[in-house]
Amino acid sequence: MRSLLGSGSLQVRVSGVTGDTWQHAMTNAIEEARAALDHDDVPIGAVLLDDSGAIVARDHNRREERGDATAHAEMLVLSDRSRQLDDWRLVGHTLVVTLEPCPMCAMAAVWARVDRIVFGASDLKAGAAWSLFNIPQDERLNHRVELVGGVSEQACKDLIASFFAERRTERP
Amino acid sequence: MRSLLGSGSLQVRVSGVTGDTWQHAMTNAIEEARAALDHDDVPIGAVLLDDSGAIVARDHNRREERGDATAHAEMLVLSDRSRQLDDWRLVGHTLVVTLEPCPMCAMAAVWARVDRIVFGASDLKAGAAWSLFNIPQDERLNHRVELVGGVSEQACKDLIASFFAERRTERP
Repeated sequence: MRSLLGSGSLQVRVSGVTGDTWQHAMTNAIEEARAALDHDDVPIGAVLLDDSGAIVARDHNRREERGDATAHAEMLVLSDRSRQLDDWRLVGHTLVVTLEPCPMCAMAAVWARVDRIVFGASDLKAGAAWSLFNIPQDERLNHRVELVGGVSEQACKDLIASFFAERRTERP
Repeated sequence: MRSLLGSGSLQVRVSGVTGDTWQHAMTNAIEEARAALDHDDVPIGAVLLDDSGAIVARDHNRREERGDATAHAEMLVLSDRSRQLDDWRLVGHTLVVTLEPCPMCAMAAVWARVDRIVFGASDLKAGAAWSLFNIPQDERLNHRVELVGGVSEQACKDLIASFFAERRTERP
Protein backbone atom coordinates (compact mmCIF):
# COMPACT_ATOMS: atom_id res chain seq x y z
CA MET A 1 0.00 0.00 0.00
CA ARG A 2 1.20 3.48 -0.75
CA SER A 3 -0.24 6.92 -0.83
CA LEU A 4 -1.07 8.03 -4.35
CA LEU A 5 2.00 10.09 -5.07
CA GLY A 6 4.31 8.36 -2.62
CA SER A 7 5.38 10.11 0.53
CA GLY A 8 5.13 13.85 0.59
CA SER A 9 1.70 14.01 -1.10
CA LEU A 10 -0.48 16.58 0.59
CA GLN A 11 -3.76 15.90 -1.15
CA VAL A 12 -4.09 12.25 -0.28
CA ARG A 13 -5.13 11.73 3.29
CA VAL A 14 -4.13 8.19 4.17
CA SER A 15 -6.24 6.71 6.94
CA GLY A 16 -4.73 5.69 10.24
CA VAL A 17 -6.32 2.23 10.08
CA THR A 18 -3.70 -0.47 9.44
CA GLY A 19 -3.18 -1.79 5.95
CA ASP A 20 -4.32 -5.29 6.93
CA THR A 21 -7.99 -4.27 6.92
CA TRP A 22 -7.74 -2.91 3.39
CA GLN A 23 -5.66 -5.86 2.23
CA HIS A 24 -8.26 -8.34 3.46
CA ALA A 25 -11.09 -6.31 1.93
CA MET A 26 -9.20 -6.01 -1.36
CA THR A 27 -8.71 -9.78 -1.51
CA ASN A 28 -12.49 -10.04 -1.40
CA ALA A 29 -12.90 -7.31 -4.02
CA ILE A 30 -10.51 -9.22 -6.29
CA GLU A 31 -12.61 -12.38 -5.85
CA GLU A 32 -15.63 -10.33 -6.93
CA ALA A 33 -13.69 -8.97 -9.92
CA ARG A 34 -12.98 -12.55 -11.07
CA ALA A 35 -16.71 -13.32 -10.96
CA ALA A 36 -17.27 -10.64 -13.65
CA LEU A 37 -15.35 -12.85 -16.09
CA ASP A 38 -18.24 -15.35 -16.05
CA HIS A 39 -20.32 -12.89 -18.05
CA ASP A 40 -17.50 -11.35 -20.08
CA ASP A 41 -17.44 -8.11 -18.11
CA VAL A 42 -14.22 -6.22 -17.39
CA PRO A 43 -13.02 -7.75 -14.09
CA ILE A 44 -13.58 -4.99 -11.55
CA GLY A 45 -14.90 -5.81 -8.08
CA ALA A 46 -15.91 -3.86 -4.99
CA VAL A 47 -16.83 -4.45 -1.38
CA LEU A 48 -18.30 -2.04 1.14
CA LEU A 49 -17.18 -2.07 4.78
CA ASP A 50 -19.12 -0.69 7.72
CA ASP A 51 -17.36 1.26 10.45
CA SER A 52 -16.21 -1.95 12.18
CA GLY A 53 -14.48 -3.08 8.97
CA ALA A 54 -17.04 -5.84 8.27
CA ILE A 55 -17.98 -6.47 4.64
CA VAL A 56 -21.65 -5.48 4.27
CA ALA A 57 -21.98 -5.49 0.47
CA ARG A 58 -20.01 -6.99 -2.41
CA ASP A 59 -20.48 -6.99 -6.17
CA HIS A 60 -18.71 -6.66 -9.51
CA ASN A 61 -19.02 -4.92 -12.83
CA ARG A 62 -22.20 -6.04 -14.61
CA ARG A 63 -22.30 -3.63 -17.55
CA GLU A 64 -22.41 -6.33 -20.22
CA GLU A 65 -24.50 -8.74 -18.22
CA ARG A 66 -27.22 -6.19 -17.50
CA GLY A 67 -26.72 -4.08 -20.61
CA ASP A 68 -26.50 -1.01 -18.40
CA ALA A 69 -23.65 1.50 -18.44
CA THR A 70 -24.39 2.48 -14.84
CA ALA A 71 -23.90 -1.06 -13.48
CA HIS A 72 -20.35 -0.50 -12.20
CA ALA A 73 -19.29 -2.50 -9.13
CA GLU A 74 -19.18 0.60 -6.92
CA MET A 75 -22.69 1.75 -7.85
CA LEU A 76 -24.08 -1.69 -7.11
CA VAL A 77 -22.56 -1.98 -3.62
CA LEU A 78 -23.60 1.56 -2.68
CA SER A 79 -27.20 0.95 -3.80
CA ASP A 80 -27.25 -2.47 -2.15
CA ARG A 81 -26.18 -1.08 1.22
CA SER A 82 -28.63 1.81 0.96
CA ARG A 83 -31.42 -0.68 0.37
CA GLN A 84 -30.34 -2.64 3.46
CA LEU A 85 -30.41 0.49 5.62
CA ASP A 86 -33.21 2.29 3.78
CA ASP A 87 -30.96 5.34 3.90
CA TRP A 88 -28.88 7.04 1.23
CA ARG A 89 -26.43 8.25 3.88
CA LEU A 90 -23.57 5.78 4.23
CA VAL A 91 -21.50 7.70 6.77
CA GLY A 92 -18.84 5.48 8.39
CA HIS A 93 -18.51 3.20 5.36
CA THR A 94 -15.42 2.44 3.28
CA LEU A 95 -15.70 1.61 -0.41
CA VAL A 96 -12.98 -0.82 -1.52
CA VAL A 97 -12.59 -1.31 -5.27
CA THR A 98 -9.98 -2.95 -7.49
CA LEU A 99 -9.78 -0.02 -9.95
CA GLU A 100 -9.74 3.72 -9.30
CA PRO A 101 -13.37 4.92 -9.54
CA CYS A 102 -14.58 6.91 -12.56
CA PRO A 103 -16.40 10.25 -12.09
CA MET A 104 -19.77 8.47 -11.90
CA CYS A 105 -18.72 6.19 -9.06
CA ALA A 106 -16.53 8.73 -7.28
CA MET A 107 -19.43 11.19 -7.16
CA ALA A 108 -21.85 8.47 -6.04
CA ALA A 109 -19.51 7.87 -3.07
CA VAL A 110 -19.46 11.60 -2.33
CA TRP A 111 -23.26 11.84 -2.52
CA ALA A 112 -23.56 8.81 -0.22
CA ARG A 113 -21.11 10.45 2.19
CA VAL A 114 -18.88 7.42 2.61
CA ASP A 115 -15.82 8.03 4.78
CA ARG A 116 -13.20 6.51 2.55
CA ILE A 117 -12.39 5.01 -0.83
CA VAL A 118 -9.64 2.37 -1.03
CA PHE A 119 -8.61 1.31 -4.51
CA GLY A 120 -6.11 -0.99 -6.18
CA ALA A 121 -4.91 0.01 -9.64
CA SER A 122 -5.03 3.55 -11.01
CA ASP A 123 -7.14 4.26 -14.08
CA LEU A 124 -5.29 6.67 -16.31
CA LYS A 125 -8.17 6.73 -18.82
CA ALA A 126 -11.12 7.60 -16.60
CA GLY A 127 -9.95 7.70 -12.98
CA ALA A 128 -11.59 10.39 -10.86
CA ALA A 129 -9.85 9.77 -7.55
CA TRP A 130 -6.52 11.14 -8.71
CA SER A 131 -5.72 10.40 -12.34
CA LEU A 132 -7.99 12.73 -14.35
CA PHE A 133 -10.00 14.36 -11.56
CA ASN A 134 -9.99 14.20 -7.79
CA ILE A 135 -13.70 14.33 -7.14
CA PRO A 136 -13.64 12.74 -3.65
CA GLN A 137 -11.45 15.56 -2.36
CA ASP A 138 -12.73 18.50 -4.36
CA GLU A 139 -13.18 21.30 -1.84
CA ARG A 140 -16.07 22.76 -3.87
CA LEU A 141 -18.27 19.74 -3.24
CA ASN A 142 -20.27 19.28 -0.04
CA HIS A 143 -18.43 16.22 1.31
CA ARG A 144 -14.83 15.00 1.29
CA VAL A 145 -13.80 11.35 1.13
CA GLU A 146 -10.44 9.96 2.29
CA LEU A 147 -8.44 8.15 -0.38
CA VAL A 148 -6.09 5.21 -0.13
CA GLY A 149 -4.61 3.96 -3.41
CA GLY A 150 -2.35 1.14 -4.55
CA VAL A 151 -3.68 -1.67 -2.32
CA SER A 152 -2.80 -4.96 -4.09
CA GLU A 153 -2.20 -2.76 -7.09
CA GLN A 154 -0.35 -5.27 -9.23
CA ALA A 155 -2.92 -8.05 -8.78
CA CYS A 156 -5.78 -5.67 -9.67
CA LYS A 157 -3.91 -4.38 -12.71
CA ASP A 158 -2.89 -7.85 -13.95
CA LEU A 159 -6.47 -9.09 -13.80
CA ILE A 160 -7.68 -6.34 -16.13
CA ALA A 161 -4.61 -6.51 -18.40
CA SER A 162 -5.06 -10.30 -18.91
CA PHE A 163 -8.73 -9.76 -19.73
CA PHE A 164 -7.93 -7.32 -22.52
CA ALA A 165 -4.94 -9.35 -23.75
CA GLU A 166 -7.19 -12.43 -24.10
CA ARG A 167 -9.83 -10.45 -25.97
CA ARG A 168 -7.22 -9.16 -28.39
CA THR A 169 -6.08 -12.75 -29.04
CA GLU A 170 -9.64 -14.01 -29.52
CA ARG A 171 -10.66 -11.18 -31.85
CA PRO A 172 -7.71 -10.40 -34.09
CA MET B 1 -32.29 28.85 -24.94
CA ARG B 2 -28.73 30.01 -24.95
CA SER B 3 -25.30 28.49 -25.15
CA LEU B 4 -23.71 28.19 -21.75
CA LEU B 5 -21.57 31.28 -21.82
CA GLY B 6 -23.69 33.21 -24.28
CA SER B 7 -22.45 33.77 -27.79
CA GLY B 8 -18.76 33.40 -28.38
CA SER B 9 -18.36 30.27 -26.23
CA LEU B 10 -16.06 27.81 -27.94
CA GLN B 11 -16.50 24.82 -25.70
CA VAL B 12 -20.24 24.42 -25.97
CA ARG B 13 -21.31 22.85 -29.20
CA VAL B 14 -24.93 23.78 -29.69
CA SER B 15 -26.84 21.33 -31.83
CA GLY B 16 -28.40 22.36 -35.12
CA VAL B 17 -31.79 20.97 -34.10
CA THR B 18 -34.33 23.70 -33.47
CA GLY B 19 -35.07 24.81 -29.95
CA ASP B 20 -38.71 23.69 -30.14
CA THR B 21 -37.73 20.03 -29.71
CA TRP B 22 -35.82 20.77 -26.51
CA GLN B 23 -38.51 23.14 -25.27
CA HIS B 24 -41.17 20.47 -25.63
CA ALA B 25 -38.96 17.85 -23.99
CA MET B 26 -38.10 20.22 -21.16
CA THR B 27 -41.78 20.87 -20.48
CA ASN B 28 -42.10 17.13 -19.91
CA ALA B 29 -38.97 17.05 -17.74
CA ILE B 30 -40.45 19.85 -15.62
CA GLU B 31 -43.66 17.82 -15.20
CA GLU B 32 -41.50 14.96 -13.97
CA ALA B 33 -39.64 17.30 -11.61
CA ARG B 34 -42.97 18.30 -10.04
CA ALA B 35 -43.78 14.64 -9.39
CA ALA B 36 -40.71 14.44 -7.12
CA LEU B 37 -42.46 16.80 -4.70
CA ASP B 38 -44.96 14.04 -3.87
CA HIS B 39 -42.22 12.22 -1.97
CA ASP B 40 -40.34 15.26 -0.71
CA ASP B 41 -37.47 14.91 -3.16
CA VAL B 42 -35.69 17.89 -4.69
CA PRO B 43 -37.73 18.59 -7.86
CA ILE B 44 -35.44 17.52 -10.69
CA GLY B 45 -36.82 15.68 -13.71
CA ALA B 46 -35.43 14.11 -16.85
CA VAL B 47 -36.62 12.65 -20.11
CA LEU B 48 -34.67 10.71 -22.72
CA LEU B 49 -35.30 11.22 -26.45
CA ASP B 50 -34.44 8.78 -29.21
CA ASP B 51 -32.96 10.00 -32.48
CA SER B 52 -36.39 10.97 -33.83
CA GLY B 53 -36.97 13.22 -30.80
CA ALA B 54 -39.61 10.93 -29.24
CA ILE B 55 -39.63 10.61 -25.45
CA VAL B 56 -38.63 7.03 -24.67
CA ALA B 57 -38.02 7.31 -20.89
CA ARG B 58 -39.00 9.78 -18.18
CA ASP B 59 -38.37 9.92 -14.45
CA HIS B 60 -37.47 12.19 -11.57
CA ASN B 61 -35.22 12.37 -8.56
CA ARG B 62 -36.05 9.56 -6.11
CA ARG B 63 -33.19 9.85 -3.63
CA GLU B 64 -35.40 10.27 -0.58
CA GLU B 65 -38.13 7.98 -1.79
CA ARG B 66 -35.75 5.09 -2.46
CA GLY B 67 -33.15 6.02 0.16
CA ASP B 68 -30.49 5.75 -2.53
CA ALA B 69 -27.98 8.47 -3.38
CA THR B 70 -27.62 7.12 -6.91
CA ALA B 71 -31.33 7.53 -7.74
CA HIS B 72 -30.97 10.80 -9.66
CA ALA B 73 -33.44 11.42 -12.50
CA GLU B 74 -30.74 11.05 -15.16
CA MET B 75 -29.49 7.69 -13.86
CA LEU B 76 -33.02 6.34 -13.80
CA VAL B 77 -33.87 7.28 -17.39
CA LEU B 78 -30.55 5.97 -18.72
CA SER B 79 -31.01 2.62 -16.94
CA ASP B 80 -34.64 2.43 -17.96
CA ARG B 81 -33.83 2.89 -21.64
CA SER B 82 -30.95 0.41 -21.47
CA ARG B 83 -33.34 -2.16 -20.01
CA GLN B 84 -35.77 -1.51 -22.90
CA LEU B 85 -33.04 -2.05 -25.49
CA ASP B 86 -30.99 -4.59 -23.51
CA ASP B 87 -27.98 -2.51 -24.50
CA TRP B 88 -25.84 -0.07 -22.53
CA ARG B 89 -25.07 1.86 -25.72
CA LEU B 90 -27.54 4.72 -26.13
CA VAL B 91 -26.06 6.28 -29.25
CA GLY B 92 -28.47 8.73 -30.90
CA HIS B 93 -30.22 9.62 -27.64
CA THR B 94 -30.61 13.04 -26.01
CA LEU B 95 -30.81 13.38 -22.22
CA VAL B 96 -33.00 16.33 -21.22
CA VAL B 97 -32.85 17.35 -17.56
CA THR B 98 -34.06 20.33 -15.56
CA LEU B 99 -30.77 20.82 -13.67
CA GLU B 100 -27.19 20.63 -14.94
CA PRO B 101 -26.01 17.06 -14.29
CA CYS B 102 -23.56 16.27 -11.48
CA PRO B 103 -20.35 14.28 -12.18
CA MET B 104 -22.17 10.99 -11.51
CA CYS B 105 -24.89 11.64 -14.07
CA ALA B 106 -22.65 13.43 -16.58
CA MET B 107 -20.28 10.45 -16.62
CA ALA B 108 -23.16 7.99 -16.86
CA ALA B 109 -24.23 9.84 -20.03
CA VAL B 110 -20.66 9.64 -21.37
CA TRP B 111 -20.44 5.89 -20.60
CA ALA B 112 -23.82 5.34 -22.28
CA ARG B 113 -22.57 7.30 -25.30
CA VAL B 114 -25.61 9.54 -25.60
CA ASP B 115 -25.33 12.20 -28.30
CA ARG B 116 -26.45 15.19 -26.33
CA ILE B 117 -27.37 16.60 -22.93
CA VAL B 118 -29.90 19.44 -22.77
CA PHE B 119 -30.37 21.05 -19.38
CA GLY B 120 -32.32 23.86 -17.79
CA ALA B 121 -30.75 25.56 -14.78
CA SER B 122 -27.04 25.56 -14.02
CA ASP B 123 -25.85 23.93 -10.80
CA LEU B 124 -23.08 26.04 -9.33
CA LYS B 125 -22.63 23.62 -6.41
CA ALA B 126 -22.16 20.32 -8.22
CA GLY B 127 -22.64 20.87 -11.97
CA ALA B 128 -20.37 18.82 -14.19
CA ALA B 129 -21.52 20.00 -17.59
CA TRP B 130 -19.94 23.42 -17.26
CA SER B 131 -20.06 24.84 -13.75
CA LEU B 132 -17.45 22.83 -11.78
CA PHE B 133 -16.33 20.35 -14.44
CA ASN B 134 -17.10 19.75 -18.08
CA ILE B 135 -17.13 15.97 -18.10
CA PRO B 136 -19.28 15.53 -21.25
CA GLN B 137 -16.69 17.37 -23.33
CA ASP B 138 -13.46 16.33 -21.65
CA GLU B 139 -11.11 15.38 -24.47
CA ARG B 140 -9.37 12.81 -22.27
CA LEU B 141 -12.49 10.64 -22.02
CA ASN B 142 -13.49 8.17 -24.73
CA HIS B 143 -16.70 9.88 -25.84
CA ARG B 144 -17.88 13.47 -26.23
CA VAL B 145 -21.43 14.66 -25.64
CA GLU B 146 -22.97 17.82 -27.09
CA LEU B 147 -24.29 20.30 -24.54
CA VAL B 148 -27.23 22.69 -24.70
CA GLY B 149 -27.91 24.69 -21.55
CA GLY B 150 -30.47 27.22 -20.37
CA VAL B 151 -33.62 25.68 -21.86
CA SER B 152 -36.56 26.94 -19.74
CA GLU B 153 -33.89 27.95 -17.27
CA GLN B 154 -36.00 30.21 -15.08
CA ALA B 155 -38.82 27.70 -14.64
CA CYS B 156 -36.36 24.93 -13.71
CA LYS B 157 -34.56 27.21 -11.25
CA ASP B 158 -37.76 28.57 -9.66
CA LEU B 159 -39.04 25.05 -9.01
CA ILE B 160 -35.95 24.13 -6.99
CA ALA B 161 -35.71 27.53 -5.27
CA SER B 162 -39.36 27.31 -4.07
CA PHE B 163 -38.73 23.81 -2.75
CA PHE B 164 -35.85 24.96 -0.56
CA ALA B 165 -37.63 28.17 0.46
CA GLU B 166 -40.62 26.14 1.68
CA ARG B 167 -38.40 23.75 3.60
CA ARG B 168 -36.70 26.66 5.33
CA THR B 169 -40.12 28.02 6.36
CA GLU B 170 -41.32 24.63 7.60
CA ARG B 171 -38.17 23.87 9.58
CA PRO B 172 -36.98 27.10 11.13
